Amino acid sequence: MCWFYARKLEPFMTKERLYVYDTTLRDGQQTQGVQFSLAEKQQIAATLDALGVDYIEGGWPGANPIDSAWFDSQPKLRATFTAFGMTKRAGHSAENDTALNAVVNANTAAVCLVGKTHDFHVETALGITLDENIENIRRSIEHLVSQGREALFDAEHFFDGYKANPDYARACIQAAFAAGARWIVLCDTNGGALPAEVGQIVQEVITAGLPGDHLGIHTHNDTENAVANTLAAIDAGARQIQGTLNGLGERCGNANLTSLLPILKLKEPYRSNYEIGVTDAALRDIKRASRVLDDILNRIPAPQAPFVGASAFVHKAGLHASAILKNPVTYEHIDPALVGNQRDIPMSNQAGQSNLRKRLKEANLIVEKDDPALGRILELVKEREAQGYSYDTAQASFEILARRELGLCPVFFEVKRYKVSVERRKNKYNRMVSLSEALVVVRIDGEKKMSVSESMDELGNDRGPVNALSKALAKDLGPYQAMIDDMNLTDYKVRITQGGTEAVTRVVIDCEDSKGRSWATVGVSANIVDASFEALLDAVNWKLIRDTAPPA
Amino acid sequence: MCWFYARKLEPFMTKERLYVYDTTLRDGQQTQGVQFSLAEKQQIAATLDALGVDYIEGGWPGANPIDSAWFDSQPKLRATFTAFGMTKRAGHSAENDTALNAVVNANTAAVCLVGKTHDFHVETALGITLDENIENIRRSIEHLVSQGREALFDAEHFFDGYKANPDYARACIQAAFAAGARWIVLCDTNGGALPAEVGQIVQEVITAGLPGDHLGIHTHNDTENAVANTLAAIDAGARQIQGTLNGLGERCGNANLTSLLPILKLKEPYRSNYEIGVTDAALRDIKRASRVLDDILNRIPAPQAPFVGASAFVHKAGLHASAILKNPVTYEHIDPALVGNQRDIPMSNQAGQSNLRKRLKEANLIVEKDDPALGRILELVKEREAQGYSYDTAQASFEILARRELGLCPVFFEVKRYKVSVERRKNKYNRMVSLSEALVVVRIDGEKKMSVSESMDELGNDRGPVNALSKALAKDLGPYQAMIDDMNLTDYKVRITQGGTEAVTRVVIDCEDSKGRSWATVGVSANIVDASFEALLDAVNWKLIRDTAPPA
Repeated sequence: MCWFYARKLEPFMTKERLYVYDTTLRDGQQTQGVQFSLAEKQQIAATLDALGVDYIEGGWPGANPIDSAWFDSQPKLRATFTAFGMTKRAGHSAENDTALNAVVNANTAAVCLVGKTHDFHVETALGITLDENIENIRRSIEHLVSQGREALFDAEHFFDGYKANPDYARACIQAAFAAGARWIVLCDTNGGALPAEVGQIVQEVITAGLPGDHLGIHTHNDTENAVANTLAAIDAGARQIQGTLNGLGERCGNANLTSLLPILKLKEPYRSNYEIGVTDAALRDIKRASRVLDDILNRIPAPQAPFVGASAFVHKAGLHASAILKNPVTYEHIDPALVGNQRDIPMSNQAGQSNLRKRLKEANLIVEKDDPALGRILELVKEREAQGYSYDTAQASFEILARRELGLCPVFFEVKRYKVSVERRKNKYNRMVSLSEALVVVRIDGEKKMSVSESMDELGNDRGPVNALSKALAKDLGPYQAMIDDMNLTDYKVRITQGGTEAVTRVVIDCEDSKGRSWATVGVSANIVDASFEALLDAVNWKLIRDTAPPA
Repeated sequence: MCWFYARKLEPFMTKERLYVYDTTLRDGQQTQGVQFSLAEKQQIAATLDALGVDYIEGGWPGANPIDSAWFDSQPKLRATFTAFGMTKRAGHSAENDTALNAVVNANTAAVCLVGKTHDFHVETALGITLDENIENIRRSIEHLVSQGREALFDAEHFFDGYKANPDYARACIQAAFAAGARWIVLCDTNGGALPAEVGQIVQEVITAGLPGDHLGIHTHNDTENAVANTLAAIDAGARQIQGTLNGLGERCGNANLTSLLPILKLKEPYRSNYEIGVTDAALRDIKRASRVLDDILNRIPAPQAPFVGASAFVHKAGLHASAILKNPVTYEHIDPALVGNQRDIPMSNQAGQSNLRKRLKEANLIVEKDDPALGRILELVKEREAQGYSYDTAQASFEILARRELGLCPVFFEVKRYKVSVERRKNKYNRMVSLSEALVVVRIDGEKKMSVSESMDELGNDRGPVNALSKALAKDLGPYQAMIDDMNLTDYKVRITQGGTEAVTRVVIDCEDSKGRSWATVGVSANIVDASFEALLDAVNWKLIRDTAPPA
């Protein structure tokens, strides 16, 4: 019988405490293209602190001016603020090692030092003897302890080292432990270890005498197993886990706390057997915490991210969608609200009638079960998706389509024609510049209105023909003008797709307004300007429908 | 001692065959926002086939017009082409079940039917008795076998079902196996299972009498453990794995074949113990396969993707980078070339320059090691990539940029100005129609030439402003006219990206000519017409450089 299954059958008598160590600000910053400013480090640390992690590794004092300034600012945190550095070099005493001094002088309550435990690296990368390396580890940790710091030892390349020379790898970490390190962190530095061997090696280390409640695990995602490797180490007895928000980190990233924390809080056997410093209320904020980091990095949030992604609880398949409508437990492994996320059932050509009725209900369109309009709408959606439309990301366009079919779509205005031009030529400074101009003719309440606009923004840059067209359309919509002015285009996505046999352009537009609504529409045409204009018209109509609806 | 470790210590005497079942075209299509066209399904299937997967699940015949057309086309593949459907409903015989008939009538060699194995789902979602469900499974599989098909049974929610009622879950799959199913696929449908329990349950199923070489595993990534769950099932004895390219799939996606195939081919104990249909040469193409899907989805490739991501073997400056320069084995768990990827050390000028020279050589531009132009080109590429350009996928634009910097870019013609308009209005039949017109002024050999064109194709459809512009440009290029006429635009991709602080449009154009050349160029601007025109000009210039070059 396997250890993990024995665990499952026999829950712990009392919960054991697991400690969470965040390294977003240090290992996360190793990501290609990532360099946090001081203000960003402060914001991320505050977010992590609110989440309830036990340790926040701030960076490497002395490695660069921002990290030094950040440690000088002595941030006030509930979590244990930790400085990162490396064990002293051979040939210097710990007291006289410049790099180590910079780390110690940051005056943090805890210090984590990385050191070698793989014989090959000691000899190849450091070029010192195996004994010298152990001495460096011992002296460095002793120095931290003598300064009254909580000492952590990051055992670099531990799993590779253990597979190559288990006695030496163990001797290194035993030296750190004997010297007073509170935590020995087993690191899979190159991310190549797989869960089974991680579990087994951690178990052997514990059997050899290192207590599990002094062992940490630090994994990387190079085989997509960083989360699984962390769980395997916990199962084997490790009691500190290291990771980063959104799995940020060098190469393929570190263990993703945004997945690990929900697993530890919500999934068995972890939920019953362990306690972490993250409260239920904090967990409900984890999606927001994930977005804080995306915002700082200016990244589009990964829609498929476990637990926190926009698609994590989206049910597209017809079968799934109809079962979810009967009982959400059928296709959801957790309640999305527990991680601050929500369920969504988009429209698509795989959806059935029950899905459709739910979708309509969300737009306050109550349609009876046997209404023949349902079949017509489904057919229309199928037909248009074959032309290149995609309604699962464009609920507002779906609603407009359904309303037209149900006779519930008011006609606010009619676009009679438009014309848009793009011109590129030399300006008076002999530089090539572009300008777009648009003219739109609409009929509102029997009155014809003609508006023109150009595409220049405040900085004098040309924003292109679609921009000019949308400004011209929005310029004078009579009684609806105030509603349109309250509309803000937040994203504009273009893809070339196949509509029948010809390539067509699909445009998806995201909008929001001051009432906190956000909506998306879609347009399809071989002509990108037409496709954009179609999506824009749907967006405007949706907004007018909402704003002119009688209060519920 | 754990089973997995026993495996590791005692390698198999002979390699066992693992079968790879791809469901990108079916479960992958369940992803929010994904709807493949027929041409895209064909392209993806060809890519998977070249990769060497054993089964390609094409979709659900009868579920939508595209899937039906795709099965009607009877694609020729090395892999076993498989139709997906569900077990028959209660109250119909298998022969008279409409949905099942549509699947059987697709005439594929293999058919995979999903059915319930979780008692709760049978009673809640289907509303039939537990015995009726088993009867449905048995009759459906028998029907497939009687039609001479290879039958697969997807045991939906198997792990949840097993945890709730192991006897019933086992009875369901035993019925399918007894009825002649070649494979019983254990599905973690809601993605909530964790590796330890997956391994244990698969082991128990095998102990209960279902042979491992008839068991498959189908996982989802809702806890970020889809890959680990698959490995746990293999370790326990399952011999078919299901997954998708890039982990595409409903909610958080399916098990990622782009990670699993490299693990199975390259990592122990899998490398020594198992054989899959993917050759070493095919594995070197897996990064390209991953990009094919991203291109189709118009997604930016995930830089941190294990094995195939652009950052997967990037070593940011510091300890790692200098060790890597001494010996790549120090920080890499596999050789990146084995998966068609490459090492990159962004901060190392040395590594940057040797990469650059390699790329220039591909364009027949031999540059000496210490040429200062190398540094200038590197800087320029960096700067333009920060603006939104992407030279990875646009080698021809990269070549033009480098040639300009090296003084090796002939000036064939100069575009003085252009103007393009789009007009949408009612035609004489009172239907809204669009027309685009373009005017381009170029100077060739001191002579000014003015050309106009409109965007109508042979069928009288408007193809938009970029089409009009490209036709006007290509209309009269004097001595180069024949070369331009030999140029065919094969694809046009548009992406909104971030250039500095503003959203800009990136256009990538693919071209080919009668000499069998194909090339890609990139343009970036806030104005989509400008961005397109820039990419078009690069494409034309590249063609003229090739056609006017003296024979090698």
